[in-house]
Amino acid sequence: MASTAIDSAIFRDIFSSEAMRRIFSDEHRVQCYLNVEAALAQVQAKLGLIPHRAADEIKAKCTLDSIDMARLKSQTELIGYPVLPVVQQLVAACSDRLGEYCHWGATTQDITDTTIIMQTREALALVEQDLAAIADSLADLARRYRDTPMAGRSNLQQAVPITFGYKVATWLSAIKRHQQRLAELRPRVLVGEFGGAAGTLASLGDAGLQVQDALMAELGLGQPEIAWHTARDRIAEVGCFLGLVTGTLGKIATDVKLLMQTEVGEVSEPYAKDRGSSSTMPQKRNPISCNYIHACMAIVRQLVPGLLEAMVEDHERSTGPWEIEWIAVPEIFLLSSGALQQARTLLAGLEVDVSRMRANLAISRGLICTEAVMMGLAPHLGRQRAHDLVYDISRQASVSGRPLLDLLAENAEISSFLDRVALANLLDPTKYIGNSCEMVDRVLG
Amino acid sequence: MASTAIDSAIFRDIFSSEAMRRIFSDEHRVQCYLNVEAALAQVQAKLGLIPHRAADEIKAKCTLDSIDMARLKSQTELIGYPVLPVVQQLVAACSDRLGEYCHWGATTQDITDTTIIMQTREALALVEQDLAAIADSLADLARRYRDTPMAGRSNLQQAVPITFGYKVATWLSAIKRHQQRLAELRPRVLVGEFGGAAGTLASLGDAGLQVQDALMAELGLGQPEIAWHTARDRIAEVGCFLGLVTGTLGKIATDVKLLMQTEVGEVSEPYAKDRGSSSTMPQKRNPISCNYIHACMAIVRQLVPGLLEAMVEDHERSTGPWEIEWIAVPEIFLLSSGALQQARTLLAGLEVDVSRMRANLAISRGLICTEAVMMGLAPHLGRQRAHDLVYDISRQASVSGRPLLDLLAENAEISSFLDRVALANLLDPTKYIGNSCEMVDRVLG
Amino acid sequence: MASTAIDSAIFRDIFSSEAMRRIFSDEHRVQCYLNVEAALAQVQAKLGLIPHRAADEIKAKCTLDSIDMARLKSQTELIGYPVLPVVQQLVAACSDRLGEYCHWGATTQDITDTTIIMQTREALALVEQDLAAIADSLADLARRYRDTPMAGRSNLQQAVPITFGYKVATWLSAIKRHQQRLAELRPRVLVGEFGGAAGTLASLGDAGLQVQDALMAELGLGQPEIAWHTARDRIAEVGCFLGLVTGTLGKIATDVKLLMQTEVGEVSEPYAKDRGSSSTMPQKRNPISCNYIHACMAIVRQLVPGLLEAMVEDHERSTGPWEIEWIAVPEIFLLSSGALQQARTLLAGLEVDVSRMRANLAISRGLICTEAVMMGLAPHLGRQRAHDLVYDISRQASVSGRPLLDLLAENAEISSFLDRVALANLLDPTKYIGNSCEMVDRVLG
Amino acid sequence: MASTAIDSAIFRDIFSSEAMRRIFSDEHRVQCYLNVEAALAQVQAKLGLIPHRAADEIKAKCTLDSIDMARLKSQTELIGYPVLPVVQQLVAACSDRLGEYCHWGATTQDITDTTIIMQTREALALVEQDLAAIADSLADLARRYRDTPMAGRSNLQQAVPITFGYKVATWLSAIKRHQQRLAELRPRVLVGEFGGAAGTLASLGDAGLQVQDALMAELGLGQPEIAWHTARDRIAEVGCFLGLVTGTLGKIATDVKLLMQTEVGEVSEPYAKDRGSSSTMPQKRNPISCNYIHACMAIVRQLVPGLLEAMVEDHERSTGPWEIEWIAVPEIFLLSSGALQQARTLLAGLEVDVSRMRANLAISRGLICTEAVMMGLAPHLGRQRAHDLVYDISRQASVSGRPLLDLLAENAEISSFLDRVALANLLDPTKYIGNSCEMVDRVLG
Repeated sequence: MASTAIDSAIFRDIFSSEAMRRIFSDEHRVQCYLNVEAALAQVQAKLGLIPHRAADEIKAKCTLDSIDMARLKSQTELIGYPVLPVVQQLVAACSDRLGEYCHWGATTQDITDTTIIMQTREALALVEQDLAAIADSLADLARRYRDTPMAGRSNLQQAVPITFGYKVATWLSAIKRHQQRLAELRPRVLVGEFGGAAGTLASLGDAGLQVQDALMAELGLGQPEIAWHTARDRIAEVGCFLGLVTGTLGKIATDVKLLMQTEVGEVSEPYAKDRGSSSTMPQKRNPISCNYIHACMAIVRQLVPGLLEAMVEDHERSTGPWEIEWIAVPEIFLLSSGALQQARTLLAGLEVDVSRMRANLAISRGLICTEAVMMGLAPHLGRQRAHDLVYDISRQASVSGRPLLDLLAENAEISSFLDRVALANLLDPTKYIGNSCEMVDRVLG
Repeated sequence: MASTAIDSAIFRDIFSSEAMRRIFSDEHRVQCYLNVEAALAQVQAKLGLIPHRAADEIKAKCTLDSIDMARLKSQTELIGYPVLPVVQQLVAACSDRLGEYCHWGATTQDITDTTIIMQTREALALVEQDLAAIADSLADLARRYRDTPMAGRSNLQQAVPITFGYKVATWLSAIKRHQQRLAELRPRVLVGEFGGAAGTLASLGDAGLQVQDALMAELGLGQPEIAWHTARDRIAEVGCFLGLVTGTLGKIATDVKLLMQTEVGEVSEPYAKDRGSSSTMPQKRNPISCNYIHACMAIVRQLVPGLLEAMVEDHERSTGPWEIEWIAVPEIFLLSSGALQQARTLLAGLEVDVSRMRANLAISRGLICTEAVMMGLAPHLGRQRAHDLVYDISRQASVSGRPLLDLLAENAEISSFLDRVALANLLDPTKYIGNSCEMVDRVLG
Repeated sequence: MASTAIDSAIFRDIFSSEAMRRIFSDEHRVQCYLNVEAALAQVQAKLGLIPHRAADEIKAKCTLDSIDMARLKSQTELIGYPVLPVVQQLVAACSDRLGEYCHWGATTQDITDTTIIMQTREALALVEQDLAAIADSLADLARRYRDTPMAGRSNLQQAVPITFGYKVATWLSAIKRHQQRLAELRPRVLVGEFGGAAGTLASLGDAGLQVQDALMAELGLGQPEIAWHTARDRIAEVGCFLGLVTGTLGKIATDVKLLMQTEVGEVSEPYAKDRGSSSTMPQKRNPISCNYIHACMAIVRQLVPGLLEAMVEDHERSTGPWEIEWIAVPEIFLLSSGALQQARTLLAGLEVDVSRMRANLAISRGLICTEAVMMGLAPHLGRQRAHDLVYDISRQASVSGRPLLDLLAENAEISSFLDRVALANLLDPTKYIGNSCEMVDRVLG
Repeated sequence: MASTAIDSAIFRDIFSSEAMRRIFSDEHRVQCYLNVEAALAQVQAKLGLIPHRAADEIKAKCTLDSIDMARLKSQTELIGYPVLPVVQQLVAACSDRLGEYCHWGATTQDITDTTIIMQTREALALVEQDLAAIADSLADLARRYRDTPMAGRSNLQQAVPITFGYKVATWLSAIKRHQQRLAELRPRVLVGEFGGAAGTLASLGDAGLQVQDALMAELGLGQPEIAWHTARDRIAEVGCFLGLVTGTLGKIATDVKLLMQTEVGEVSEPYAKDRGSSSTMPQKRNPISCNYIHACMAIVRQLVPGLLEAMVEDHERSTGPWEIEWIAVPEIFLLSSGALQQARTLLAGLEVDVSRMRANLAISRGLICTEAVMMGLAPHLGRQRAHDLVYDISRQASVSGRPLLDLLAENAEISSFLDRVALANLLDPTKYIGNSCEMVDRVLG
C-alpha cells in the first residue's frame, strides 16, 4: 500500500522510472550499506587492522539474507538511524563473533553518506543515458526539419518566421550544456565519506587516512580531503543540476503543449489509441507527457531549496538538516526520472504537421514579416522612422482587416522606394528565416 | 519495493503515520472514486435520470473487487488519467449492461477533485486530533511548570528569566491559532466538484444543478457555486495551513534541540533505551524526534509554493499544474503527519530538568538580570543613562570575570541610589519573571 | 540609485504601487516606531508610570525631524538593529532629559513588531481596495458576457462550449473567497506586541499587563495573550494569503495571455498606442500586464516559504529567522501590489472579441460538441458504448478532414436513433452551454 | 524613498554591498544598454553595414546624458520594456538623423540579455573577490588553531574532540569548491545575445553571424551557438551557484551563533563597542553578522526556484517567465553580496576563546571520549560488545553523576584489559583529536 504518487501502484511509472526506483529502494540502500561495510572490512584486513577471517566472514554475510527488514524498521524507529541496527544484525549473522570486527572505526554517517554517493553515481548514469537519448531525438528532429518554416512566436504573438529545426536546436543546445555540467560535477561530487564520529578518524589511531584511501579506491570513489558530514554542497549541487535539467524539459513541454492547441495544431504527442482521451469528450487528444513533465519539474524545482537548506548544518554532525536529504534526494532523482522518461517518449515519437505550420504562417496575412519590410525601408527612411511607419500601417491592417500588402503599396513614402513586387517578396515568410539553418548546423556540429 | 522515504519499509512510520498513509493509498483513492460514482448513480436514480436497477447494480459493484489494479495501472499510463479506466472496469463489472449508466454526465476531474476533497476531509480530521493531543500535552506542561524559572534567551544569549511554563505557553498559543484556522477553512474547502467537461453541466441538460446539489448532500460536502476545476485556491489554502502548522512544530523542535545541548541540558526527548544512540559514541543521546520534525517541516514548506503554482491553471481544465497536486497534496499531508506524530511523542514525554534550569540561571553570575538593575536605576538616572552605565559595567564583568554585584556596588553613581542588598535583590533571577505566570493563565484560560 | 526592480527609478510602478511603497518606506517605518514610542509614553503617563510632562515632550519630538537618517544608518549597522539608535536620537531630541522616560520597559522587538503590524494593517487595506476593484470589474464582465458563447478548453484543446461570462465568474469566485479570507485573518493578525526583553513584562513590575492593554487600545490593535516575538504564524499567514491572492491573479493572466495569442485572438489587454509594441516587430501587441502579473506572482510564491521558515525561531528572541521577515514582508506586499495594480488595469479595460469567439467555436467543425452527441446517444446505446463509438468517429473526422456531421449521419448504429437534423442540432455549440448562465448568476448573487 | 530592505536608506549596507548595488543600479543598467548599442554600431560600421559617421555619432551619444530618466520611466510603463524608449531617446540625441542607424537588426531582448550578462560578469568578479578574502581568513584561522582542541559536536551533543582548525578547514573546503565551480561556469555563462526578433538574425540578411561574432569579440563575451532568448539555463545556473555559496555561509554562521551561546562561549563576532547591544538588556552581545547572513541566505535560497521557473519560457520569446529574472537576478546577487560582506567581516575578526574550548571539553567528565574507550576495548571484547558495555556505563554516569573513569575502572570486564591509568589516558580529550591536523594541512595544501 503505497501512499505517494511516486510509489503508487497506479502512477509509479508515470512519475518515475523503474530503474531509478530500484536505486532508491530500501533493498538497494541496505545492500549499499552492506557493500560499504564489506569493503571496509576487506581493506582493513589488507592493512592488518582486523583478521582476514573476519573480513571474509563479514563480506560473506553482507547480503540482504542477513537482514530482517521488519526488525530493522522497528530498531530504526527506536534508535533514529538505520545503520546501527544493520550493523547489529550483521554482527549477529557472522559466526564465531567475527562480526565484532565490522564497522571498525566508522560512524553511522560514513556509511549513509557513502551510500548516497554510490546511489548518486548510479542515478547520474541513468540521467546521462536519458540526456543522450533526448539529445539524439532532438538532433534527428533538428536535422529533419532544418529547413521547415514555421511561425516564430514572441509573447505568444506570431513574430517572425523560423524553422522547426531551429526551434528544436535551441532545445538541444541546452541539453548539451547539461551534459557538460554533468561531466564537470561528477569528480567533485562522487567522493566518499569515511571519518568516524566527528570526521577526524580518531578511532583508527594512525591508520585512519590509509584506511580512508584504500576504502575509496575499493569503492571507486574520490577520497575526501576532509570530512563533509556537514559540508553538503556536493549533494545540493546535484539537486541544482536536476533543477536545471528538468527546467529545460519543462520549456520543451511548454512549447509542445502550446503547439498542440486546437487553434495551432503544429505538433502532437506520439499517437497511441486512447492516449490522452477524455472520459466525456470523445474528440480530445491531450498532451499527457507534457503535463507529467510539467508536474515533475515543478516539484523538483521546489526540492532544490530543500537541499540548499540542508546545507545549513550545525557543527560536525547536524540535527535535522541532514534528514531533509533523506526525503529530498530520492524524490528529486525519482521525479527527474519521470520527467526524463516522459520527455524521451515524447521526443522520440513527436508528430509534426508541416502543412499546419505553413498554414499558420499565412494567417496574419503578412504581418509576421513586417520586420522584413521595416528593414527593407530602413536604408531609405532610417530604422526608427521605418519602424514607426510600419507600426501604424500594421495597426490599420489589424483594425480594418485589409491585406497588409495593399496598405503598404498604397503608401506614398514607401512606394517611392519599394514597389508592390518588392514588398510582396519581403512579405513571403518562407524567405525570411534568416540564419535558422546555419544555427541548426552549429548546434549539431 | 518502495523508493520514497515516506513509503519506505524502514522509514515510513518516521516520516508519516499509518493512518495518513491509508487515506492516500491507491486502494483508498480508488475506493473514493467508486464511492463518488455510486453516490452519483444513487442520486440520479432518485431524480429519475437513470433506472433504479442500474443505480443498485452500480453501487453493488463499486468495491475494489471490481477493479484489476494491474490493468488500471497500464490503462492509466496509456490514457493519462485513472478515472476513465476505473469507469471502464466498473462498466464491465456490472451485469446486464447496467454499467452504461454510471459516470452519467460526469467528467474525470469531477471524480478526482471530489475524491481529493473527501481525502482532505479525512486527513484534516487526523490533523485535528494531533493538534488536540499536542495542545493537551502543552497545556499540561504549561500548568506543571508555570512557576519554574529558567533563562529566557534572545539571540542565543541569556536575556532575562522566564518560566518554563511561559515558554510552553507561547508554543501553545500558536497551536490554538492553528485550531482556529482549521475551523475557518473547513467549510470553505470541503466543497465537492461536479460540473462535467467544462464545468457547465451541459451533459445533464436541465437536471445538472439538481444532480449537483443532491450529490453533494449525499457526500456531505458543500455545493460549489461554480466549477473549481481551475480555481484551486482551496487546495493551496490547505497546503498553506499545513505549512503554518509544521512551522510551529519546527519552532518547538528547535527550542527542544537547543535545550538538549550538552552545555544546556534543560530538557530531553523522552527516554527509551537505545533511543538516539550512536553507532560509535556510546555516551550520545540525540534529539531524534526533533530532527525528523525539522526534516518533515522543511519539505512541507517547499511544497507550499508547489501548490501555489498549481493555482496557475490554464482555461477550464489545465495542462500540468493540476498534476502538481497529485504529487504534492499527499506528500504535504503525509510529511505533516510524520511531524505531528513525532511532536506528539516528544511533548507527551518531554523530560524537564528543573535543577539544570536553575543552575543555568546562575552561570552568568547576575548578568541575566542587568535589565532589572537598569530599570531599578532608571527612575533615578533616566532609562537611557542607566542602560549605558550598566552596559559598561556588564562588559567589565565579562572581561574581568569579577562578579557583577561587586562592580555595581562599587560604582558611586549607582550606590547613591541602591545599596548592595537592593542590588543583590535585583540580581536574583527567580524574582524577575515578570508576568510569566499570568500569561500562562491567559493562554490556558 | 536604486538597485532592486521594486525601487528602480524605471520599473518601480510596474512591479509595485506608489501607495504600497510609501507604507514600507524608511520614513514611514521610522515614523511608525516613533508613533509607538509616543503612544507608549502617553499611556504610561496616564497610568502614572512616567511624568505627564515627559509624555508630552516625547510625543512632541516623535516626528522625523528628530531623526538624523544618516546617523541612524551608521548606528544601525554598528548595533545591528534600528530601534536603539532611534531611541537614542529621541532621547537626545527631548529637552530637560525628559527623553529618559521614553521606551520605558519596552524592547527593540516590541517596537518593530508593532510597527510591522501597523504597516500590515495599512497594506491589507490597500489589498482590500484592489480586490474590491477587481471584483467589480469581473462582475461587470461576467454580467456583460453572461450569454456570450466561446470554446471551453481543457488541456489546451477545445472541449465543450462555455460562455465568457462563465469563465470570468470562475475567476470572480476565487476573488470572493480571498475577500472572505482577508476578513477572517484580520482580527487574528492585527495584534500588537509589547512584552519587554523576553516577553514577560518584567521591566514594568506590576503594571505590565495594564500598560500592554492600554497601549494596544491606543493603537487600535488587538492585545496579545502572550508575547509572539518568536511565534510568527501571524506574519506567515499574511504571506500565505498573498500567495493565494497572486495565485488567482496568475491564473487570470494565464488565461488572458492564451486568449490573446495570434491564433486565438479572443481578448486583448486594453489598447493604448505603443502599448506592448516591439523594438523590431511593428505588428506586435504584447500582453504586458499579464507578463508582469506572472513575474510578480512567481516571486511572491517563493517568498511564502521564506516566511514559513522565519517561523522556526529559537527561544524567546531569534537569531536570523526574524530578519528574514525584514526582507520578505515588504517585498511580498510590494510585488503583490504590482500584480494587483496590473490586474486592475487589465480587467478594467479588457477588450473582448465576441466574433472571434464565435469563429473559434466553428473551427473544429463540430468536434467541440461530441459530448453532446455522446450524451444524446447514451440513453439508446449506453454511455460508455456511445463514448467509444463517437471517439472512433471523431478520430476519423480529424484524420480525414471530413465533416463530423457527415460521418455521424452515415453511421448506421447512430442514424437509427438520431437523424441528421437531430445531429446537427446537437452539434450547434451555441446550444450546448449548459448551466453557464445560472452559474454566473450564482457567483454574482 | 526606498521600500525594499536592499535599497533602504537604513539597511542597504547590511543586506547588500555598495559595489553590488552599483552594478544593478538603473544608471548602470541603462549605461550597459548604451554600451551594447555603441559596440553594435562600431562593429556594423567596420563591416560596412552602416556609415562610420553614424557609428561615431551613436557612440558619442551613448552616455547617460542622452537619457531623460523620467521619460524613460513613463515610456517603459507604456510600452512594457525599456529598450525601445532608450533607443528612441538615443535616436533623438544623435544629430543629422544618424541615430536612425542604431539598434540595426537588434531586438529588445538582445540588448537586455547582453546587459544582464555584462552585469553578471561584473557581479561574479565581486563574488570572486569575496570568496578569496573569506578563503584567506579561513586559512589563517585554520593554520592558527590547527592544534587547538575543542569539542566536536553531533546532534548538538558533545561527540568526540576535534581541533578548531579542523572545524574551520571543513568550512574552507566548501569555499574552495565554490571557487572551482565559479571557474567552470564562467565560460559557459558569459555568452552574449544577438539574434534579432526570433534569434535567426533575419533582419541582417547575410551579415548576421558576422555581426554577432564581431559584437561578442568587441564586448569580450562568448558567441552563442544559437539564440538563448528562451533557453535560460545559464542564468538559472548562476542562481544555483549563489544558492550553494550562501548555503555554506549559512552553515558557518550557524556554527558561530551556536558557539557564541552564553552556555558555550567559544567564539564571538568581532567586538566593537555597542555592536550587538540590546535596547533593554545591557549585558547582551548578539551575533549580528550571523543573523544577517542567515536572513540573506534564506531569501537567496528561495529565489533559486524562481530562476528555475524562469527557464520554462514559451516559444522564441516568453510571456512572463523572463520578467521573473528582472526581479530575481539583481536580488539574488545583492543579497549574496550582503551575506558575503557580513561573512568577510565576521571571519576577518573572529574572536576565539581557547580556554573556554578547553573548559567545555571537560564538562562531560570524560563522556566525550567514550569512543576512545570503546575502541580501546574493541580488540579485546569485540567492537559491538564494547559499544554496548560502554553505552550502559555512560548512561549510569549521566544518571548518577559519578565520574565515568570510576565507573569504568570498577567494571570487571573492562579492568581485566585496561587499568585505571590506561583508561584515564583514553579519556584525555586532548589526546583524541585523530587526524585533525593532517586534514587541516590537506585542505590548506
